[in-house]
Amino acid sequence: MNSVSTALTFLFLGGKMKTDRSKYRIRELLSYADISIDGNNPWDIRVNDDRFYARALADGALGAGESYMEKWWDCEELDEFITRILNANLQEKIRTNLKLISTVLFVRIFNKQSRTASFINGQKHYDLGNDLFTQMLDKRLVYSCGYWKNAASLDEAQENKLDLTCRKLSLKPGMRVLDIGCGWGSFAKYAAENYSVNVTGITVSKEQAEYGRKICSGLPVDIRLMDYRDLNEKFDCIVSIGMFEHVGYKNYRTYMEVADNCLKDNGMFLLHTIGSNDSGKFNDPWFTKYIFPGSMLPSIAQIGRAVEGLFVMEDLHNFGTDYDRTLMAWHKNFINNWDVIKDRYDETFFRMWKYYLLSCAGSFRARKNQLWQIVLSKKGIPGGYTSIR
Amino acid sequence: MNSVSTALTFLFLGGKMKTDRSKYRIRELLSYADISIDGNNPWDIRVNDDRFYARALADGALGAGESYMEKWWDCEELDEFITRILNANLQEKIRTNLKLISTVLFVRIFNKQSRTASFINGQKHYDLGNDLFTQMLDKRLVYSCGYWKNAASLDEAQENKLDLTCRKLSLKPGMRVLDIGCGWGSFAKYAAENYSVNVTGITVSKEQAEYGRKICSGLPVDIRLMDYRDLNEKFDCIVSIGMFEHVGYKNYRTYMEVADNCLKDNGMFLLHTIGSNDSGKFNDPWFTKYIFPGSMLPSIAQIGRAVEGLFVMEDLHNFGTDYDRTLMAWHKNFINNWDVIKDRYDETFFRMWKYYLLSCAGSFRARKNQLWQIVLSKKGIPGGYTSIR
Repeated sequence: MNSVSTALTFLFLGGKMKTDRSKYRIRELLSYADISIDGNNPWDIRVNDDRFYARALADGALGAGESYMEKWWDCEELDEFITRILNANLQEKIRTNLKLISTVLFVRIFNKQSRTASFINGQKHYDLGNDLFTQMLDKRLVYSCGYWKNAASLDEAQENKLDLTCRKLSLKPGMRVLDIGCGWGSFAKYAAENYSVNVTGITVSKEQAEYGRKICSGLPVDIRLMDYRDLNEKFDCIVSIGMFEHVGYKNYRTYMEVADNCLKDNGMFLLHTIGSNDSGKFNDPWFTKYIFPGSMLPSIAQIGRAVEGLFVMEDLHNFGTDYDRTLMAWHKNFINNWDVIKDRYDETFFRMWKYYLLSCAGSFRARKNQLWQIVLSKKGIPGGYTSIR
Repeated sequence: MNSVSTALTFLFLGGKMKTDRSKYRIRELLSYADISIDGNNPWDIRVNDDRFYARALADGALGAGESYMEKWWDCEELDEFITRILNANLQEKIRTNLKLISTVLFVRIFNKQSRTASFINGQKHYDLGNDLFTQMLDKRLVYSCGYWKNAASLDEAQENKLDLTCRKLSLKPGMRVLDIGCGWGSFAKYAAENYSVNVTGITVSKEQAEYGRKICSGLPVDIRLMDYRDLNEKFDCIVSIGMFEHVGYKNYRTYMEVADNCLKDNGMFLLHTIGSNDSGKFNDPWFTKYIFPGSMLPSIAQIGRAVEGLFVMEDLHNFGTDYDRTLMAWHKNFINNWDVIKDRYDETFFRMWKYYLLSCAGSFRARKNQLWQIVLSKKGIPGGYTSIR
């Protein structure tokens, strides 16, 4: 998350200093977010290894995440810890507080991530083992934000989201629908079964493609293992749920040109993506190194530029706080079902995954990240588009 | 309208040519939009003066509009004529049709408008005489797009829009609301009467300010004659309906900074504006010269850049086709009530105004222009924003 990165970069400022001095700096900065070291609130942190202070100051967001994985510190409610840090806008406070300015001099720009050094690469993330996702996700394996309006469970929230997506696109029997980044085929299956459409889903993950083909057998669904840039045929509708985050700002325009090329003139394209408040070009370094290498969150300005001259923006629906609930539900499943899968992973993986889910939940709770469903039409729907919620 | 300009620029290509040759060119281009000269369809044109062909080719959109005002040509359904021209995407056709390329060589870039030469300037537009607007608009004098969902009349569509705006902002009794570009005070009056809020409305038109003060007397409404850049106080909410079109791309960021500065941290800002599919820097030259000098339609990319780091986009609602209906209702009123006001104007004004209303209706019908209501929050509404339609 860009914003987690920014805040943590300012929180865990750089420079080699003695532990006492480092501890003093960290304590002071945390105080602006009402977080104590060894306090009694669930969002307070417990430091198990004093090397944490210097590491966090030296390596910022990356150091914070890595030292968490290594058990140097703990927090009962990591999601609330992150929410508070982000809500405190430490950046602004540092800017206007003379006492803190000297500290800022130690800030390092974090851009150390490299694809090769990554613990898990983009494709591998989804190939991690379906058992991990089976235990963590809903019954359909929908690995994107649910829609919690009128939902009492994760299963319902994901079904709601799939149905909302179909309704927003006004799917009609027999339509040919393209799903860019189809995951384990949950949308393809749902749309084919409930809206009688033909779905072509593409993914770059072998495990996803195999799983998707299996659950969609007997349905008019074609799951292909391919890159979106190799697409070249026409569809009545396009949907892309939680894939644009992997595209990268340099490819935003190409991605939209492919969508434009693959969409019939009167068609609609629903883009479902996490959004950022800023037009950044890097994601949080810890997140990029350990969770999704190459991932990047688009801003409205970046999306606006990417679609210009190709698509009309018919509707934008922001339900980012539903991602907080979704991530907390995944976290709960992950913790509850850890015993089932723990033989395949180790404790560092456990802490890494927990840190991933809870820090993301915090970033949505603090409204630093958004979830946008954007309906785009090629030439404007004649007579206008009616928003659905 | 940018898009009208573009299309007409390509339609009425430049260069001095003999009438026959000009007529041939115009006829050929119109044929791509299924429009005939002296045909039987209501969108066909009748040419009353052969000088029209050369004038249109020489002066593009400006020449088309001016020669219409001068009665050189006529059309039964001007709105449908414009819709067809815009839908025909003549630009694309010219690009891919060799026969037409030579014609394109005569294209002139239209940027001849100057403030001083303008028939009516921005401020004067609204000071044209309240009687014109009284005869044309709904009973509340709302001079912006109505919301036709469940509306049977213009009065209802405008009341719906005002109420929708209040509901989107979750107005609560006692809130202080800023209305940037308050027009004749219709929103201020409606919100104060129905939602018990205090409204500060600003406008640059004397006639609007006087009228607004009169209709809002006795209500907690303060109408001020001032520029938005002079604002410097805090409000719970901000609304700006149909004013951003006058701001100009160079001032988009300043405008958003003013809004940011005037909005409390937990406040919402509803921006209601006509939108363009392109990030243009000029409006249609005829429109700029005769109707709204200095007006300019923002794109998503431009709005995205302007709000970045200041606002979170919570919702975008596109009801551009409702502007088609609104403009047609204004046109109907204008025609029906012309007798009441015609002593103050002349026939050229009549034709100019008709051309304005119907060409705008056509541009919305062709989906070249959009109407966006965008809900912005300063730091993201805690717990999320719920879209209202």
